[in-house]
Amino acid sequence: MCGIVGYAGHEQAAPFLLEGLEKLEYRGYDSAGIAVFSDKVRTVKSQGRLAVLREKVNAAGGVSGTLGIGHTRWATHGAPNDINSHPHSSMSRRITVVHNGIIENYIPLKEELQANGVVFRSETDTEVVAQLFDYLYDGDLVGTLIKVLHRIRGSYALGILCTDYPDTLLAVRKDSPMIIGLGEHENYIASDIPAVLDHTRKYYLLGDNEIALIKADSVELMDMDRKPVHHEVYTVDYDISAAEKGGYDYFMMKEIKEQPNALSTCIGSRVHDGEITLDKLRLSDERIKNIGRIHMVACGSAWHAAMVGKYVIEELTRIPVEVDLASEFRYRRPILSRNDLCITISQSGETADTLAALREAKANDVHVLSIVNAVGSSIARESDDVLYTMAGPEIAVATTKGYTTQLAVIYLIALKFAQIRQTIRPEVFQSLLADLQKLPEQLESIFADEDKIRQLAKDHQSTGTELVRNNVFIIGRGIDYGASLESSLKLKEISYVHSEAYAAGELKHGTISLIEPGTLVIAVATQDLLYEKLISNVKEVKARGAHVIAIVKEGCTDAETVADTVLYIPKTADLFTSTLTVVPMQLFAYYTAIELGCDVDKPRNLAKSVTVE
Amino acid sequence: MCGIVGYAGHEQAAPFLLEGLEKLEYRGYDSAGIAVFSDKVRTVKSQGRLAVLREKVNAAGGVSGTLGIGHTRWATHGAPNDINSHPHSSMSRRITVVHNGIIENYIPLKEELQANGVVFRSETDTEVVAQLFDYLYDGDLVGTLIKVLHRIRGSYALGILCTDYPDTLLAVRKDSPMIIGLGEHENYIASDIPAVLDHTRKYYLLGDNEIALIKADSVELMDMDRKPVHHEVYTVDYDISAAEKGGYDYFMMKEIKEQPNALSTCIGSRVHDGEITLDKLRLSDERIKNIGRIHMVACGSAWHAAMVGKYVIEELTRIPVEVDLASEFRYRRPILSRNDLCITISQSGETADTLAALREAKANDVHVLSIVNAVGSSIARESDDVLYTMAGPEIAVATTKGYTTQLAVIYLIALKFAQIRQTIRPEVFQSLLADLQKLPEQLESIFADEDKIRQLAKDHQSTGTELVRNNVFIIGRGIDYGASLESSLKLKEISYVHSEAYAAGELKHGTISLIEPGTLVIAVATQDLLYEKLISNVKEVKARGAHVIAIVKEGCTDAETVADTVLYIPKTADLFTSTLTVVPMQLFAYYTAIELGCDVDKPRNLAKSVTVE
Repeated sequence: MCGIVGYAGHEQAAPFLLEGLEKLEYRGYDSAGIAVFSDKVRTVKSQGRLAVLREKVNAAGGVSGTLGIGHTRWATHGAPNDINSHPHSSMSRRITVVHNGIIENYIPLKEELQANGVVFRSETDTEVVAQLFDYLYDGDLVGTLIKVLHRIRGSYALGILCTDYPDTLLAVRKDSPMIIGLGEHENYIASDIPAVLDHTRKYYLLGDNEIALIKADSVELMDMDRKPVHHEVYTVDYDISAAEKGGYDYFMMKEIKEQPNALSTCIGSRVHDGEITLDKLRLSDERIKNIGRIHMVACGSAWHAAMVGKYVIEELTRIPVEVDLASEFRYRRPILSRNDLCITISQSGETADTLAALREAKANDVHVLSIVNAVGSSIARESDDVLYTMAGPEIAVATTKGYTTQLAVIYLIALKFAQIRQTIRPEVFQSLLADLQKLPEQLESIFADEDKIRQLAKDHQSTGTELVRNNVFIIGRGIDYGASLESSLKLKEISYVHSEAYAAGELKHGTISLIEPGTLVIAVATQDLLYEKLISNVKEVKARGAHVIAIVKEGCTDAETVADTVLYIPKTADLFTSTLTVVPMQLFAYYTAIELGCDVDKPRNLAKSVTVE
Repeated sequence: MCGIVGYAGHEQAAPFLLEGLEKLEYRGYDSAGIAVFSDKVRTVKSQGRLAVLREKVNAAGGVSGTLGIGHTRWATHGAPNDINSHPHSSMSRRITVVHNGIIENYIPLKEELQANGVVFRSETDTEVVAQLFDYLYDGDLVGTLIKVLHRIRGSYALGILCTDYPDTLLAVRKDSPMIIGLGEHENYIASDIPAVLDHTRKYYLLGDNEIALIKADSVELMDMDRKPVHHEVYTVDYDISAAEKGGYDYFMMKEIKEQPNALSTCIGSRVHDGEITLDKLRLSDERIKNIGRIHMVACGSAWHAAMVGKYVIEELTRIPVEVDLASEFRYRRPILSRNDLCITISQSGETADTLAALREAKANDVHVLSIVNAVGSSIARESDDVLYTMAGPEIAVATTKGYTTQLAVIYLIALKFAQIRQTIRPEVFQSLLADLQKLPEQLESIFADEDKIRQLAKDHQSTGTELVRNNVFIIGRGIDYGASLESSLKLKEISYVHSEAYAAGELKHGTISLIEPGTLVIAVATQDLLYEKLISNVKEVKARGAHVIAIVKEGCTDAETVADTVLYIPKTADLFTSTLTVVPMQLFAYYTAIELGCDVDKPRNLAKSVTVE
């Protein structure tokens, strides 16, 4: 996580750096800092949100200079205090660094430098880079950087200033994202596109182990052997307003409301005349017919999408699907065969564990198909095939449209594979396709319940003890269990309520002991075959005093005889209900967070894309 | 859940019924009741623990008669109040019933009877059986029962009294356990053996859809066509003291301390001269060599054992293992092949969902190997092969020795299969076997930390806000994640602390937002290859103010530089650490429950064996 920015141009650097960091704050907001070079490097940094840094800069009367770097931090090593904030400088202050990622071998390097008299100020891994650079420095900026890169291990995107080079911003990356924005007589670096979008729509994607020498009027790219590297210039194709709040209090609500459009784009662009076109997959029909097993690998909400995906893909294609957390998959020596398919899912396309899992799969000659939102991201580029979710930029830390479009792509894959493998009858295929195309409109119709859901959130927070209010259980069976996992995470991540999802049949094997009078249990019961079973589970928790909100399909009005409140979703195929059931829970989580005074878009401790493992 | 007992003899029935119910209280303790027949049926029942019923019986001056039935309830339909308690009688009071299980079609039956003028007193499914029996009654006791059985759907063990038959106890079962104890001029029914153990060691296992007519001097068994059925007489082979507390305050602590012995028996009886003998498996070596996939299916703690098992079996045998919750497996149309193996795991051997999953696997021609503790239980009888865990009776609701012996059997299976499939080198096999045999003694050595762990539990409960004390996270990677799941459940089920286990890499995808200053995070880090990764995760939560207890292998003293407290387990193979890591957590959960004044052996809302789905 963490976000970095840099500026080389003829204007003042500080305003760009502060604005850019604001756009990257979703990547971490434990602390922030900037360093600007004029005659010397002046650094201002501070614990807390960017607003605190801005005040500190203002109080100092601004920081003058036309070359600079900035950083917003998600703490990994050392507490989030002023000293551990970036940028970090070497002892002589010749070298100043911002860094996103983790230097894995920083402890032995630090000990080695200390043994040679280097004095450290912070507990961070990043300071080691600055100190090592200075220690190895021989006047050759690029040459020294290459030496440093040979010594450090881990993942990094680095922005580096050296007082001997007053016009040059040095950058390099490995396994952490970085783009180079191309302006008019000024150039930029940033962890992500929104940081530069007010200034330019043109950019390079810097490759792993590539070095960039950036000046006001030139960008020089080279590899570790100093050989020139040439890159295509990308142009941002989405409207700038997509990265702005557009009248909403929070990005999250804006993105919740964007879901019908996002789904329309994602599905509509691939369905024509009763047929599904999965972009230009390299995976041939022949290979699809011969897939032995599918491994779905992801983290967080994308993993929840995969949990739903397992049910959908297995049911339609009868291919066994194994779902793995990327952080587990990469280290557990998974059993892979050449005719397996690996599907990796990541909104940002930069999730470190998922990227590593992708590489593990490829190293085993397994074809990798990725479902990604961010075009040109690392996962997209390294996959054999990529299906974009086309959700547009997602800024709120808690994903909404990112998740529902991932589900849509999974449905499309399942249907297409089933058709190719002839495990689905043509009329069922057409009927499911019709249901799929109705999802955007059906999702929109759920917004009509917004006021009711807001009131539910308000009511829940105004009853019972603090402990009761803070323990929530979400139960479901089959696909509804998958949707419960995502619903639970929404509540957790933005409202800090300890919510936990359970396969409904499992609750009585221990966890039901936590149900006491007033405990909120949300029961998701959209599957025809499992409906009665779930209603039985609702009775069990009601018998222990639970307060129950049920989410069911339109028409299942008998749920009202057992649950305290019932929320309805429009009727769709049982396989597709998760796209709809999660929406009331997105709204419930949002309004719970509002009720509790939480910062919806920037929950404590979190960062949007997890680019460290 | 629920426990039933019955008595037919020449002594007073009530004392036996109350004693027997006490032994079955682990099966549910929402309410209890007895019904005794002399000139008429007298019923005493009450919400709450058995002690309340005992007082009520005493206050009534006892309940006289030599024929009777009793029940201890885990509520499924209707709140646990006096009226919903069992036994239930028909309107005329001619028929009185105790029931364990669920009558799935009770609503239409009830409506039908109501339309015919029958008046119901309770909300239970059970009363429908009593009323329907009376409604259909034609003077022929067995004939009427058969008519009733043709009308009801679901699972049941029923004990029935009819005022026309003053010497006869009628019993039948389907998918719920029942034994018939054989005494001297008296006979008994019970849901489980401990209920009769003070009176006899001889018993029948009643089969599904078998009817028993029980009198003081005879037991007549027949099938639904009234044809006689003959059963082998079983003899209880464990010491009676094994089902008593033996000086401990709670069964749970006794059972924690019994683990070294239980493990010794479980492993020692199968390992001789460097070879593993897996009882008399019908599964041939040839079939073991050709296994395509293994499906491990279980609920609760047994599912946690399977989660560890997946790692161990995959690593040693390279057979892909899919772990399923039984409640999900049975309904999700799993993809099964004839050369797959299904391993079901259940301490009681009566877990309803696991039993149904077993039947689903068998219906698909998949060989089922079960890991079970209770000899002769339904799952043991219906499996193609069974490996007993030999842990002896486990009474506390929270499993301890049940879980660790399940793990031991899994290790034995993994090693044996690996040997047969030649996926393990002989010297590695011998080295792992040696480690396995050391586990009992190593487990014992952890008890030396008991005082330290008690103090940790005390300290945790005396700091911070109520909310902070009640949110605990347990993190681990790989096998340690499996052990974290079980550790977390221990804490949940007996102390009601909302503890949640996380694959350590997944925490930062949302849940880390719940970490605030003082939040307890327990980090399990026993895997050499993942140790550094986990220490990084510990730093991340420490940076957010968490209080960290780490569980690591002896020698990993550097954990003390990052964690607040470190607990050590003896060195063993990485594959086997879960057997040891769970022990400090059993003790921590136990002492947390004691500190909070909870009833350790009988946590609220729970029952030991979940015989309803």
